[in-house]
Amino acid sequence: MSAPLIFHFDFSSPYGYLASTKIDALGARHGRDVIWKPFLIGATLKVTGLPVLMEVPLKGDYSRHDFARSARFHGVSYNHPDPFPISTQAPARAFYWVAAQDPVRAKQLAVALLQAYFVEGINISNPADTVAVAKGLGHDAAALEAALNDPAVKALLKDEVDAAMGKGVFGSPFVFVDGEPFWGIDRFDQIERWLATGGF
Amino acid sequence: MSAPLIFHFDFSSPYGYLASTKIDALGARHGRDVIWKPFLIGATLKVTGLPVLMEVPLKGDYSRHDFARSARFHGVSYNHPDPFPISTQAPARAFYWVAAQDPVRAKQLAVALLQAYFVEGINISNPADTVAVAKGLGHDAAALEAALNDPAVKALLKDEVDAAMGKGVFGSPFVFVDGEPFWGIDRFDQIERWLATGGF
Repeated sequence: MSAPLIFHFDFSSPYGYLASTKIDALGARHGRDVIWKPFLIGATLKVTGLPVLMEVPLKGDYSRHDFARSARFHGVSYNHPDPFPISTQAPARAFYWVAAQDPVRAKQLAVALLQAYFVEGINISNPADTVAVAKGLGHDAAALEAALNDPAVKALLKDEVDAAMGKGVFGSPFVFVDGEPFWGIDRFDQIERWLATGGF
Repeated sequence: MSAPLIFHFDFSSPYGYLASTKIDALGARHGRDVIWKPFLIGATLKVTGLPVLMEVPLKGDYSRHDFARSARFHGVSYNHPDPFPISTQAPARAFYWVAAQDPVRAKQLAVALLQAYFVEGINISNPADTVAVAKGLGHDAAALEAALNDPAVKALLKDEVDAAMGKGVFGSPFVFVDGEPFWGIDRFDQIERWLATGGF
């Protein structure tokens, strides 16, 4: 099997959520595993200097309309959450804490957390809500609650965010195919052709 | 025939250029004419507060790479121009000056101007270069040169830019299908389905 795809996303990104429902199947069609790597858009905004999308005149309103329309287009359940956006340290730290032991269960947790936020309206920026979602999948709630405040787990996430930005990640979703960068679920058509042809 | 599609673009926008090579055929597949309406991204940046794309850390470098890759993906000739981006008052005023008399010839002029900038590397921000392209299509060079400085022609463009922003336009390309807004050539798949199904 060829090198895995690397899938960067923020737990508060609608397009990242939509992409999360498609990326593993896309990889599988071309014999590729996919490694999921949540990051923090807030950290990238400090580097890019860009404002929070929803606060941009004209573009913010359009984007909110486009989130829901794109979800319908891709056939994905979507209920625009409130509050939105949210900080996502809690779900991202939970992810890497689980991933350090079991990447498969970490991906299952990510799916459940995205579903909780973008379908059920659960505010996963609250550590207690992230822990509750994880507990529902059989994770140790007390251990995870402690992990969310563990400096080592915080450093794990920070290192992943820095590494992602070091590779050029500035938005969600952001996918690498053998080092080639693709930003946005609207580049999945290019990813598909890149995987089929080896580049173009 | 149903209402025409409205196609907003900036003469300095790579994605607008790529879209210009596809939009008329897209409309025709669904029995729709397309009205072209150049605008000025610079004017929208004053409203959105966003920086010039190429100056955004990380995103600027990615975008430059994506322009060329997207052109290859869509099978469109593209030579990244220098200087880039450029102000596009000259080509946009030339367009509306011609369009006031003959919309078909205005569209032909737009195609030639985009080709001049994105394939031949001609800096159409220079009024003389825009006039030369128009002259090659049989337009009256002296009359156009005068028109580019005519307050009435300037007002024509300003009114179009204000009207576009009034409808929510903030980026290029930006297409309206029966009032429904779509930003980006990467929404052409959604436009295609919208036209085929009447909305989703």
